[in-house]
Amino acid sequence: MSDKTETARLEAFCDGVFAIAITLLILEIKIPPVGSLHTVHDFWLHLLEDWPSWFGFSLSFIIILVSWVNHHNIFKIINKSSPQFTYANGFMLFTIVVLPFSTRLMSGYFTTALAQPAITVYCFSILLHNISWILFERTSMRSASLFKDKASRDMFAKAVYMPSRIAFLFYFSLCVLSFWLPFISMSLMTASWVYWIFTAIHIDPKKNESGQ
Amino acid sequence: MSDKTETARLEAFCDGVFAIAITLLILEIKIPPVGSLHTVHDFWLHLLEDWPSWFGFSLSFIIILVSWVNHHNIFKIINKSSPQFTYANGFMLFTIVVLPFSTRLMSGYFTTALAQPAITVYCFSILLHNISWILFERTSMRSASLFKDKASRDMFAKAVYMPSRIAFLFYFSLCVLSFWLPFISMSLMTASWVYWIFTAIHIDPKKNESGQ
Amino acid sequence: MSDKTETARLEAFCDGVFAIAITLLILEIKIPPVGSLHTVHDFWLHLLEDWPSWFGFSLSFIIILVSWVNHHNIFKIINKSSPQFTYANGFMLFTIVVLPFSTRLMSGYFTTALAQPAITVYCFSILLHNISWILFERTSMRSASLFKDKASRDMFAKAVYMPSRIAFLFYFSLCVLSFWLPFISMSLMTASWVYWIFTAIHIDPKKNESGQ
Amino acid sequence: MSDKTETARLEAFCDGVFAIAITLLILEIKIPPVGSLHTVHDFWLHLLEDWPSWFGFSLSFIIILVSWVNHHNIFKIINKSSPQFTYANGFMLFTIVVLPFSTRLMSGYFTTALAQPAITVYCFSILLHNISWILFERTSMRSASLFKDKASRDMFAKAVYMPSRIAFLFYFSLCVLSFWLPFISMSLMTASWVYWIFTAIHIDPKKNESGQ
Repeated sequence: MSDKTETARLEAFCDGVFAIAITLLILEIKIPPVGSLHTVHDFWLHLLEDWPSWFGFSLSFIIILVSWVNHHNIFKIINKSSPQFTYANGFMLFTIVVLPFSTRLMSGYFTTALAQPAITVYCFSILLHNISWILFERTSMRSASLFKDKASRDMFAKAVYMPSRIAFLFYFSLCVLSFWLPFISMSLMTASWVYWIFTAIHIDPKKNESGQ
Repeated sequence: MSDKTETARLEAFCDGVFAIAITLLILEIKIPPVGSLHTVHDFWLHLLEDWPSWFGFSLSFIIILVSWVNHHNIFKIINKSSPQFTYANGFMLFTIVVLPFSTRLMSGYFTTALAQPAITVYCFSILLHNISWILFERTSMRSASLFKDKASRDMFAKAVYMPSRIAFLFYFSLCVLSFWLPFISMSLMTASWVYWIFTAIHIDPKKNESGQ
Repeated sequence: MSDKTETARLEAFCDGVFAIAITLLILEIKIPPVGSLHTVHDFWLHLLEDWPSWFGFSLSFIIILVSWVNHHNIFKIINKSSPQFTYANGFMLFTIVVLPFSTRLMSGYFTTALAQPAITVYCFSILLHNISWILFERTSMRSASLFKDKASRDMFAKAVYMPSRIAFLFYFSLCVLSFWLPFISMSLMTASWVYWIFTAIHIDPKKNESGQ
Repeated sequence: MSDKTETARLEAFCDGVFAIAITLLILEIKIPPVGSLHTVHDFWLHLLEDWPSWFGFSLSFIIILVSWVNHHNIFKIINKSSPQFTYANGFMLFTIVVLPFSTRLMSGYFTTALAQPAITVYCFSILLHNISWILFERTSMRSASLFKDKASRDMFAKAVYMPSRIAFLFYFSLCVLSFWLPFISMSLMTASWVYWIFTAIHIDPKKNESGQ
């Protein structure tokens, strides 16, 4: 079998799950029931008051998109597979599929008295996703043979190993912080992803491989 | 890496999101609850009175389909990628994913006293999609290197640059108009897409590249 | 561009829509609300009484599957595209996306006094799908150039042209019949698809190209 | 047509259905309605009490993932198709699409007095999936020509034939057992899949082909 086809179907399956998870997010945003609103002013007010749904939708959209871009970039330098690697991919998909749930929970309770536990759950779901990336890296690093060549492996080690560990410490701290200062936690979380996107857009393509 | 594979996975991911968004539209059309209707006449009347759902479904189906066709055509002449280009694609997908929401809102309120703000939201979501196309073009045009060759880039510039700016002015006008004359706005919106389809069907394939 | 890639992305997009529509069908089958059932006997009875949901699910699953298989087979001999052909594909996808709605309607009302109009709607949605196939054929036949070679075009004309016209007459008759004898209509509809599957399984691959 | 493309689109369609079914599972996990919970303690308690939803989600996620991995591995040695084989694939997809329903039923009733029939339905849906694998094997074995070469066919016969029959006996026993000892049945079911994953991770890639 050629190198190209070995991971092609794994990538296609992952693409499918990423694409569906990112699109399902919109289903969580409800329209106001017809008859519940009476004036144009009420209508706009309702849409404005629903901003946490849009905030959650946008943040999770960005997270899944960035995760897909990273996944995509890594497969430019990985062209073989192993059972462990396949299941590590499966675990990453698990953490992606969970995101529509934690987004719904966080958005739904954001402006209520129970915002703290909902935000904590969201932070933990992001931490879990980060852990899945570390597992993904470990299984791909275990043997050099998944990579196209030794140079790819070295680049991967440098670009992914440290950043993903730093991200782990960061998201773990956010989880702990969220018990006392949930909104600070959420602001830092948001800032980290906006920062990530801006960085990604301003670097040159060759350095874009990263493991989040 | 060969030219073909560089954008292949980006296209596959986009295809997935387009396909899911276009299919999710049907979930917004509710069937009448069993027991709420008593005669065959009631049944047909209910289906007929639900025409705004079918109007919204059909219009958004056409918009997503046309957008996919344009996306597809453009990738015939673009065969490289860049981080900026990838995220510009991501933003376009964002505006596609939002469409099932704005369609639901517009259809649901179309025959109520709150049709105006719902139509305005729909017009703005289409304007946002148009803006994502302009961003998409700008990032792909920034360096000639994303295109197969210089001729492709020139063709793209000619076929996409002006039409997308004219479309921007048109949809922006519809947004403004929708505050006072929502139904005129919606009629012009519908007419523009029907016109688009008819044009696309009657031109020869070579000229079909366009940026909407 | 090579012949292979020209229709590859159109096929991928169609595959996505077929796959999503066929999977969304299961969302229409509701589980009994917890607390509404009190004995094991009630539980099994409820599942049994919900047989129309399973009947509708299975029938529409088969219809979408057969349609995908035919679509797949036809693209073995078509390897070029045109704007008209792309939009004819889009219209076929439209009729596929509508199926989860008409299935829900038909299943939901099958054992009520309003079974007749619900079955009529279902029959019309199948007729609409048949019409989309005829349109698909006409646009692909218009110029011989969409086909790999002249032999492919001749085979297509023979295997698809007549069967799809006969199918049109058949489904149109079922639509008319459904106004007076809805259950006979539905039985003939089911029989036609079961027959189709059995035929497809027992013929040799070379003759499988057909347009339903 | 080259060998590669003959099954490529069948694989792509199956990937789509697998990906959608695995992602739809998350839609079954509901968030507590805002306003129904009053203290942080209630919030965590509610999430904890909803563990059957997470158990069902995780188990079905694993089952679909393993099934996809097996499907993927088998297509490394099968590179031709037949109408029978295509429809056997279709039947397997049918049993995958049914899983979100049986998962919802099992999770929803797991902690109620009606756990037994709900678990029985779940066991039967897994047995049905196993039967679809046996059918899949039989149609692919019927003629050696679907396989790349004779060695592939022999390997397939050895690695898949016996395991799938043993699995049939095992799941059939679980179905029977579930009438009297539903929770023992469910524990054995879970153990069998956890065992399967652990085995898959610890074997070398060359032996990973299996038919579950």
